Amino acid sequence: MGSRMAFHLAENNVDLTVYNRTTKNNKILKSKGVTIADSLKSAVKEADIVFSMLSTPEAVEEVFFGNNNTLSSMKNNAIWVDCSTVNPSFSIKAFKEAEKYKIRFIDAPVAGSKPQAENAELVFFVGGEKETIEEVGPYLNMMGKKVLHIGELGKGASFKMLVNIMLAQSMLIFSEAVLFGEKMGISKNLLLDLLPNLVVSAPFTKLKAESIKNEDYDVQFPLEWMYKDLHLASITAYEQSQPLYLTNFTKDLFAEANKNGMRRLDFSAIHKYLEKKN
Amino acid sequence: MGSRMAFHLAENNVDLTVYNRTTKNNKILKSKGVTIADSLKSAVKEADIVFSMLSTPEAVEEVFFGNNNTLSSMKNNAIWVDCSTVNPSFSIKAFKEAEKYKIRFIDAPVAGSKPQAENAELVFFVGGEKETIEEVGPYLNMMGKKVLHIGELGKGASFKMLVNIMLAQSMLIFSEAVLFGEKMGISKNLLLDLLPNLVVSAPFTKLKAESIKNEDYDVQFPLEWMYKDLHLASITAYEQSQPLYLTNFTKDLFAEANKNGMRRLDFSAIHKYLEKKN
Amino acid sequence: MGSRMAFHLAENNVDLTVYNRTTKNNKILKSKGVTIADSLKSAVKEADIVFSMLSTPEAVEEVFFGNNNTLSSMKNNAIWVDCSTVNPSFSIKAFKEAEKYKIRFIDAPVAGSKPQAENAELVFFVGGEKETIEEVGPYLNMMGKKVLHIGELGKGASFKMLVNIMLAQSMLIFSEAVLFGEKMGISKNLLLDLLPNLVVSAPFTKLKAESIKNEDYDVQFPLEWMYKDLHLASITAYEQSQPLYLTNFTKDLFAEANKNGMRRLDFSAIHKYLEKKN
Amino acid sequence: MGSRMAFHLAENNVDLTVYNRTTKNNKILKSKGVTIADSLKSAVKEADIVFSMLSTPEAVEEVFFGNNNTLSSMKNNAIWVDCSTVNPSFSIKAFKEAEKYKIRFIDAPVAGSKPQAENAELVFFVGGEKETIEEVGPYLNMMGKKVLHIGELGKGASFKMLVNIMLAQSMLIFSEAVLFGEKMGISKNLLLDLLPNLVVSAPFTKLKAESIKNEDYDVQFPLEWMYKDLHLASITAYEQSQPLYLTNFTKDLFAEANKNGMRRLDFSAIHKYLEKKN
Repeated sequence: MGSRMAFHLAENNVDLTVYNRTTKNNKILKSKGVTIADSLKSAVKEADIVFSMLSTPEAVEEVFFGNNNTLSSMKNNAIWVDCSTVNPSFSIKAFKEAEKYKIRFIDAPVAGSKPQAENAELVFFVGGEKETIEEVGPYLNMMGKKVLHIGELGKGASFKMLVNIMLAQSMLIFSEAVLFGEKMGISKNLLLDLLPNLVVSAPFTKLKAESIKNEDYDVQFPLEWMYKDLHLASITAYEQSQPLYLTNFTKDLFAEANKNGMRRLDFSAIHKYLEKKN
Repeated sequence: MGSRMAFHLAENNVDLTVYNRTTKNNKILKSKGVTIADSLKSAVKEADIVFSMLSTPEAVEEVFFGNNNTLSSMKNNAIWVDCSTVNPSFSIKAFKEAEKYKIRFIDAPVAGSKPQAENAELVFFVGGEKETIEEVGPYLNMMGKKVLHIGELGKGASFKMLVNIMLAQSMLIFSEAVLFGEKMGISKNLLLDLLPNLVVSAPFTKLKAESIKNEDYDVQFPLEWMYKDLHLASITAYEQSQPLYLTNFTKDLFAEANKNGMRRLDFSAIHKYLEKKN
Repeated sequence: MGSRMAFHLAENNVDLTVYNRTTKNNKILKSKGVTIADSLKSAVKEADIVFSMLSTPEAVEEVFFGNNNTLSSMKNNAIWVDCSTVNPSFSIKAFKEAEKYKIRFIDAPVAGSKPQAENAELVFFVGGEKETIEEVGPYLNMMGKKVLHIGELGKGASFKMLVNIMLAQSMLIFSEAVLFGEKMGISKNLLLDLLPNLVVSAPFTKLKAESIKNEDYDVQFPLEWMYKDLHLASITAYEQSQPLYLTNFTKDLFAEANKNGMRRLDFSAIHKYLEKKN
Repeated sequence: MGSRMAFHLAENNVDLTVYNRTTKNNKILKSKGVTIADSLKSAVKEADIVFSMLSTPEAVEEVFFGNNNTLSSMKNNAIWVDCSTVNPSFSIKAFKEAEKYKIRFIDAPVAGSKPQAENAELVFFVGGEKETIEEVGPYLNMMGKKVLHIGELGKGASFKMLVNIMLAQSMLIFSEAVLFGEKMGISKNLLLDLLPNLVVSAPFTKLKAESIKNEDYDVQFPLEWMYKDLHLASITAYEQSQPLYLTNFTKDLFAEANKNGMRRLDFSAIHKYLEKKN
């Protein structure tokens, strides 16, 4: 994701330094005028704005205020924009850590995965101070098609959490409906063609219906990460004493799929898992 | 629903006789040249095609082959088009009863409620013999915007069942997300504006978000009927030994709402019920 | 079950005529002085009391007031004691059918399966008129160890329904706990030895823990019947607009097990099914 | 709990120093020869064995290796026996912290609440080194009626977790059955008298049936703590990618009850909550 996002900044002639654990996209980025840093510290030390896109809260912690302690290498008053999907209470923790180094923080997770990053069609859900967001806005707009200011600090992460749990649940009710339809004797292809176009179905299921047809669960968003996000939602709900019946059931079904060989596939492979049990 | 549908047939100059338990729309229909029958028997006895739109399988049974036994008054080879929402095994029972009187049967339930009936924007899900459907097709097209031939006898009812359970479930996950978002401190109005427009939400939630905003659960599709449909799905799934986890959970939550004062409101009032418990 | 119950009546020198679809136990019964009827009609026509023990409501219907119409062969004022597990509304239907022939009816389903029937340790849950129950009581006491008068007509069936859904659910929470315990690294045998003896576990799990240890799911009460009973509960709850969250979830899990090779095993094989998915 | 447990040690003439946040039981303890410490540090500094009984993992952390850092005041080779209910991964964390100070650790949570503590009828579920457990055993036996060695470090906590989630779930299925029985027209008192004595019910429901009868939910084990324990189970299950369907549903229902006025009542008040919704 990160290199695809960097690519759009580079195309817009932003003065950009990149650090990535994997080096395979560095060549293309270099050819666009991007500086490739050989360490985290050197990547951030002169930056006015630092964007991070990592896979888990644990990874963000390790890089920014754990062992690597990247925050300590950043300039005073720099802005750290965390685009990773984390739980809201983690965003607040990150903010507090950043504050110690007089670094400004906003949480800006995205809707969209690799194809959307590739086509600058991400949607950013942003939480934080209005002024900081305005400073960062132009760059977000280079990488995405929409920037939604959801509220104060942590609300970007909160909103992203909602989007992800709806993604998982909408997938599941679609899948349950297709399998039930087949059991009632309706053609599978007809179901996959008709259902996603009805107003009762989340529109993203159009794409997933193609995955099911082709039995091709090439990963857009890995099932194991979706499982993690459902778990983060469960923890956040507990902090609010809020029941999340459908989300928690969905989480448990993803747990089953996760340990039965589906974890590295796209999350829509929950269909493949249900189909097998059927 | 029925009188709105009849209205469109009349506008297309179809030779039409109507029977309705309630008489309040008869005046308008009469003004369009429709004959108002004073009994079920007289309504159907000369008809080539009989359309029925009733609230429950029990009502269909009572009218057509129970106490009223309307089937016995129909012409040989006439077509009975049942637009009511029933379970698939009931459609097959209706077909068998019709067969005894040499009457052809198709099941043709609809997507849409009063506004869609009013604007001839219903979608018909049709099960039955291809030839019979072709005979009936022109009339269905007068009343709706789309006629989908789902499969053999009963498959219209089967497909409608899928649509309704998806409706209930999509409503519920939307509602659970809005309430969780509020708990996390995001503005309710922002949630109601943004979430329905994302690809993770079923598009019909745009309308329901307005209902929630205005706290106006004016009935489009009554919650008690949705509860019934969820129950019919549960019974049908049992016939196939098919688990329907999310559907059955949704059914139970509708049971709660049903007996706690929501049953005559629109099914989207499940939100109001959850809000109250929150 | 039926022949085991008959055996105890015979041992108590009750003047008894038996009809059974299968004939394998007839020899023993004959040796005890029991008359073996060669038809349903001849079995019941002189009887003051008729006991029935059948597998489903459908079977009871077929035998007593469907095709076989055994009721029409019974004496006026005879008592029909139905020991089958049926839903309460079916018991009421049976009562009404019996009434047409001036036959008295009580519902008297049992707790216990073959071993309890063998050892006259059944518990009868009885619904109906007090006087009728008193007439029948001595015979029930020959076949069981306890006769509980639950209430008016149908309440025996209602109570039995509660017992069966608790059986299924207690089994499931036991099973979920054992599997979770193993995942946490506790010895399976230790779990199976300790948990059933704690006050948090239903005592019947002691026996089922042995089945799990020996991987011997020899049928006491077939999984497919438990699945049916959970479904009957779901239907009855609908009649009362009553949610049954845990029961319905349990039903769906039994649906999965039912179609994945477990249906003819004991219902405790739900553990084997969960273990396989684990 | 803690003072009741201390009382039994004192009665057995154990040389004992006690520290408690609340002082109300100090008088009685003093009269039994117990030394009352005026700080945590002075309570533990000479102790060979330190028993702790606290309400949450957070409380244990704060007292032993957080702000108060009691561990640093303990003797080398002393044994810390944590009787608090915590999640297994917390026990392992506690062990590691203790190790830094060369302190031996065992986890020894209990089954039972105030009445069992009062009567020395607690059951200890112990995890840790065999030798350490043997050293501590005599003291555990003074406070309880049974000491079960479940396995290595953390397994006591794991087993306690199983017991608590079974407690919550068994309560819930009992409650759902009683309410369903009432809806079917069976007398509430009959249900409360009969059901707990059947082999399908966890024996502890006998006591809870009395609470329901008397509408007296005087706290044995507060609902909010049960909610916390269900949540800890949910987190532990995630660490194992293990689904916990019934547990997680139960957790969500306790979340509802928790925020609707039941949190300080006994956990069996989940019945009161369900009754209200009925």
